[in-house]
Amino acid sequence: MTESIPFRDTGRKELEFTVEPDLSPSNPNYADFVRHQFADATFIRALGIELADFGPGWVETRAALRPDLLQQDGFAHAGVVSTMADHSAGGSAGTLCPVGKKVLTVEFKINLLRPGKGESLRCRAQVIRAGRTITVSESEVFAIDAGVEKLIAKALVTLALV
Amino acid sequence: MTESIPFRDTGRKELEFTVEPDLSPSNPNYADFVRHQFADATFIRALGIELADFGPGWVETRAALRPDLLQQDGFAHAGVVSTMADHSAGGSAGTLCPVGKKVLTVEFKINLLRPGKGESLRCRAQVIRAGRTITVSESEVFAIDAGVEKLIAKALVTLALV
Amino acid sequence: MTESIPFRDTGRKELEFTVEPDLSPSNPNYADFVRHQFADATFIRALGIELADFGPGWVETRAALRPDLLQQDGFAHAGVVSTMADHSAGGSAGTLCPVGKKVLTVEFKINLLRPGKGESLRCRAQVIRAGRTITVSESEVFAIDAGVEKLIAKALVTLALV
Amino acid sequence: MTESIPFRDTGRKELEFTVEPDLSPSNPNYADFVRHQFADATFIRALGIELADFGPGWVETRAALRPDLLQQDGFAHAGVVSTMADHSAGGSAGTLCPVGKKVLTVEFKINLLRPGKGESLRCRAQVIRAGRTITVSESEVFAIDAGVEKLIAKALVTLALV
Repeated sequence: MTESIPFRDTGRKELEFTVEPDLSPSNPNYADFVRHQFADATFIRALGIELADFGPGWVETRAALRPDLLQQDGFAHAGVVSTMADHSAGGSAGTLCPVGKKVLTVEFKINLLRPGKGESLRCRAQVIRAGRTITVSESEVFAIDAGVEKLIAKALVTLALV
Repeated sequence: MTESIPFRDTGRKELEFTVEPDLSPSNPNYADFVRHQFADATFIRALGIELADFGPGWVETRAALRPDLLQQDGFAHAGVVSTMADHSAGGSAGTLCPVGKKVLTVEFKINLLRPGKGESLRCRAQVIRAGRTITVSESEVFAIDAGVEKLIAKALVTLALV
Repeated sequence: MTESIPFRDTGRKELEFTVEPDLSPSNPNYADFVRHQFADATFIRALGIELADFGPGWVETRAALRPDLLQQDGFAHAGVVSTMADHSAGGSAGTLCPVGKKVLTVEFKINLLRPGKGESLRCRAQVIRAGRTITVSESEVFAIDAGVEKLIAKALVTLALV
Repeated sequence: MTESIPFRDTGRKELEFTVEPDLSPSNPNYADFVRHQFADATFIRALGIELADFGPGWVETRAALRPDLLQQDGFAHAGVVSTMADHSAGGSAGTLCPVGKKVLTVEFKINLLRPGKGESLRCRAQVIRAGRTITVSESEVFAIDAGVEKLIAKALVTLALV
């Protein structure tokens, strides 16, 4: 069920809870599963993307913005930001993945909202729909520049549990 | 700037404010502009999509789920849900549109999360990035069925101010 | 298997065949199934979207660009174009849908490339990946204006067979 | 203008030419521009993505599928495939980029159609709409496994010329 706080014209987004009614993991060892999703993916290790925190239905990741992760203008490459958004979304689905299944990305869409510059990136992924075979998550990627954090990308990710 | 409330494993999404620092309309008559966006679009009137409320950077719309808006299984057609998500996003960008420009949809992506069944649909669109020529909004569509509201779709919409 | 004709710099796109190896319908009455997908969707009938032709893995549809299908600038509303792209994609998946299953849109993304103006719209949808539970199609929408046809939108659509 | 070859039910996709009428580069040194797009992006070099060929409106790239580019099941990571699709699309827009401007990704959507396994990846990106400030390209990524090439991903990419 969705709880709604009414919108008012306050110049500030009034928040709405669009939480799934039941995001309880069916796998008691889901923490191991998620850690393996990150440890076993060579590309994620190569990019230095680290699992920072997670819980049922969500994952938070971090990565230093190294010199080898940039595009031609010196900002984080869209591919780096996308990898982080995609893999974190996969992790969020992984927290709810039944024993014996695995998570695959079906597709995703990402908007690059601002240049990714600064010391590091942070990503938060949240399941917004947990189905038996299809899970949908959204990921937000932030750049941390001189201590200030800005939203630089937002993604919607469709994942399959196979 | 983005304010962040830390994530904790509460089984519930901790909310994060990803509000634009400055979503103040440059057009003092932006309300008229938004109303015209809805009143002048014949397709929106034909579908019965109504502008329910709005403010700087956001719009809320509603539509009765009429018998002519369904797909073959009796649920709201994805095209109806998409039209609502797209046009509401356009309205949210319209609240910030400078005088003399207009809003066009460049592209959008929408995930249909649940069947759209019930009496009516509600959509909330919020600007997540306001640029000079490109604005990005997200839209959430809810179905109201016997008084219970459920999130049935989420969209990311890229709009051009031309 | 994919056949490839090499790219050359001819100022013209060299074509590449990216056809699925096996797009043969498992349902001998697939034609009935597809016709019902269109006849039973009230919203499609309301918009005047007609099934013009189809075969295994593809569908072609047409619609007159009526005055009630426009946005505020007098062009085809993005919602109309999206509905056509989505439903035609659903039809293309429908040609390959096993008996006893039905087709639902999981998500789609559409780029509006040019204003949709003219007498009518035409859409062609083609399956680019036929899976057991997930099918992916692409749709191209054309506007026909004074006899000249222009590509006005392109969509990638993910469909579930449930 | 769009040339159309009629669809017939041949069990094989009839091809349609949806080429832009005018994809002629305004920059006489566009070849240098595109080569710099690849040479100056550290992330692209780090992944071993190479510019194989290009012409007005299109780019072709290749990459060996190295052990450090995989996900947890041993296939090409979606982030690798996405990076290739995105950057190649940027290159295709780069062939048409006016002097003094540069290409930025606004957003993209990618469908992962099959597991990316084999020796190498190939990507072809083609501009489908060249505007003054916004260009839209599509990218197809193929995996080459024991000499057989399969389409593993398709992307639609929106780029800004700024």
